[in-house]
Amino acid sequence: MDTMNDEFYMSLALDMAQRAQGQTGINPVVGCVVVKDGVMIGLGTHLQRGGGHAEVHALNMAAGQAQGSTAYVTLEPCSHYGKTPPCSQRLIDEGVTRVVVACEDPNPQVAGRGVAMLREQGIEVEVGLLRSRALRLNERFIKYILTKQPFVTLKTASTLDGKIATRTGDSKWISNAEARKIVHTLRHRHQGIMVGVNTVLADNPTLTTRMDVPGLNPLRIVVDSTLRIPLDAKVVSDGGAPTVVLTTEAADKVKASALAAAGVQVIACGPGPRVDLHKAMTALGEQEISSILLEGGGTLNGAMLESGLVDRVILFYAPKIVGGTAGTITFPGVERMRDAITLEGLEVEVLGDNVCISGTPARKYPEDDVN
Amino acid sequence: MDTMNDEFYMSLALDMAQRAQGQTGINPVVGCVVVKDGVMIGLGTHLQRGGGHAEVHALNMAAGQAQGSTAYVTLEPCSHYGKTPPCSQRLIDEGVTRVVVACEDPNPQVAGRGVAMLREQGIEVEVGLLRSRALRLNERFIKYILTKQPFVTLKTASTLDGKIATRTGDSKWISNAEARKIVHTLRHRHQGIMVGVNTVLADNPTLTTRMDVPGLNPLRIVVDSTLRIPLDAKVVSDGGAPTVVLTTEAADKVKASALAAAGVQVIACGPGPRVDLHKAMTALGEQEISSILLEGGGTLNGAMLESGLVDRVILFYAPKIVGGTAGTITFPGVERMRDAITLEGLEVEVLGDNVCISGTPARKYPEDDVN
Repeated sequence: MDTMNDEFYMSLALDMAQRAQGQTGINPVVGCVVVKDGVMIGLGTHLQRGGGHAEVHALNMAAGQAQGSTAYVTLEPCSHYGKTPPCSQRLIDEGVTRVVVACEDPNPQVAGRGVAMLREQGIEVEVGLLRSRALRLNERFIKYILTKQPFVTLKTASTLDGKIATRTGDSKWISNAEARKIVHTLRHRHQGIMVGVNTVLADNPTLTTRMDVPGLNPLRIVVDSTLRIPLDAKVVSDGGAPTVVLTTEAADKVKASALAAAGVQVIACGPGPRVDLHKAMTALGEQEISSILLEGGGTLNGAMLESGLVDRVILFYAPKIVGGTAGTITFPGVERMRDAITLEGLEVEVLGDNVCISGTPARKYPEDDVN
Repeated sequence: MDTMNDEFYMSLALDMAQRAQGQTGINPVVGCVVVKDGVMIGLGTHLQRGGGHAEVHALNMAAGQAQGSTAYVTLEPCSHYGKTPPCSQRLIDEGVTRVVVACEDPNPQVAGRGVAMLREQGIEVEVGLLRSRALRLNERFIKYILTKQPFVTLKTASTLDGKIATRTGDSKWISNAEARKIVHTLRHRHQGIMVGVNTVLADNPTLTTRMDVPGLNPLRIVVDSTLRIPLDAKVVSDGGAPTVVLTTEAADKVKASALAAAGVQVIACGPGPRVDLHKAMTALGEQEISSILLEGGGTLNGAMLESGLVDRVILFYAPKIVGGTAGTITFPGVERMRDAITLEGLEVEVLGDNVCISGTPARKYPEDDVN
């Protein structure tokens, strides 16, 4: 049963923001609910980069009736003139008297200034209601705004013994239909999807988003140190979505030109022989790719994880054991168990006969945690 | 809230039986509740092989007052003279007028005869209440009584990438304290615990049961094709529990004698070079070992699973990724994904930051399932 209180309205604002995940580009998802005299008079959510902010949509709906109202906003209202005028000013101008904010905006251009601006005008501001949910919702935005590097979600689907394929390379199908639907939803919610060239050579995938409803296709990113990608690969030739090939300065220039002629952007990341993954992430960040779904083979997954470039790990397990050596995440490995890459905030979801385990790689050893 | 009905009493009978798991040897666990005129007049559970059956204990408690009562029994009452007189006769003699049975006794010596015997005397008998729980409770007994081979539970504790140790062999600790406590409870509930000699050489474990309360130590079983086990290994020398070493006919006779002199039973299983695992299971069954907890390294786990000798798989996952190659279950592997060893009846339990996934290996391909 519902209990009407501040959380009741804030959770609706968060629900609206959550539904918009994937469609705001490098912008955060934000929701806003305006309440006056016991009823909602405005709802808004940020829908698209360059479009109105959540507060603006909600106040537009309120149509000048917001005097004396309370606004619930999932992210601190902005204080700067960007693509739109500052929302804090709009809240002030409309006569809103109380603003409840779920979390501060980490954007250095805002970072507390929005709240300060409101308070200076005598508006009552409360910050922190449902903060952890709000932070989680914008974890991709936060990483990107602070580092200019994309937030990387590593996703694998494996057997219970951690295998991605049988010894002969058969990988269809490991996971069940329910898990595969979630994967396509994840594609919609990331701006890029990254694989290794071996996946292209083995499966010739389209790497597009296929859901029960239409969705957005992410930028297709192929890591290919020596430009082995065929010109007739679907990601090169099918026009389903833009494609970037990450390679090295040592790669064949003629092949690079042929790919460029086919409409593929080729980016050299370091001298070689392997793609410099840190440089690759910086290059993608410069192109305003703020989130990447990594669906690599074991070697690429291992290299990304070992390089500390993975921000979230989502592992689907099917109830199968196949033996062999095709691991989901392969790298030389740590020496001591205490050096393991440890996932924090573990979440476990049972999807029929599949299990999804997800978490965030800790950036330190568990022993160092003094909290 | 409780609802009083047949299930109310049967679930108590099952609860009592469940608590006795591990202490009845090759016998099943059985519970019995006798109810008359709205109150329980007797409770009983089979405690030990050679001791009274559940019905006998319950009717003893009823002390001659069972005339016209209902008896709830988790397993069909026996009809044969074994170590004790048949329980069906005792129920008849005491004047019980209704018997509710959870599941039939698969023991060929009973197999419906107990129920038939009661019905012949005009007793109302209902079979099948909470049957699946009752069958699960006695899955070890059922396998053994039908095949004379032990029921094998494969248990592993691994990282999320399916590794049992780091590349340097460090394996302490993968799982958390909660998971380790469950493992010791599993030891108590199996008659044997099986490892490969490499585990003995690497860790020199005691393989005993350590719980918050006292428990039973299983027979320690070491698979050691060439008798590399040191005479000063704890499982040989500490007297913590009896130990069996499974080896081959090609193994060194002098070492075998030295082990025998140290009190270890050495069983040759086939000509070699590897231990014939099918022969080993038969030999252990002949010694009335009806259940084994397999805590092997990757190779032994893989060989047992590939040989179709594993009846239940319990996989603990810790939220870690370590890379390397030390897999929990290693074998050459199947060719096609459809040939995967598939676990049915998957159960998922979250234990703090560990996850336990368990199931029963299907004996056929999923595609062949026409149900």
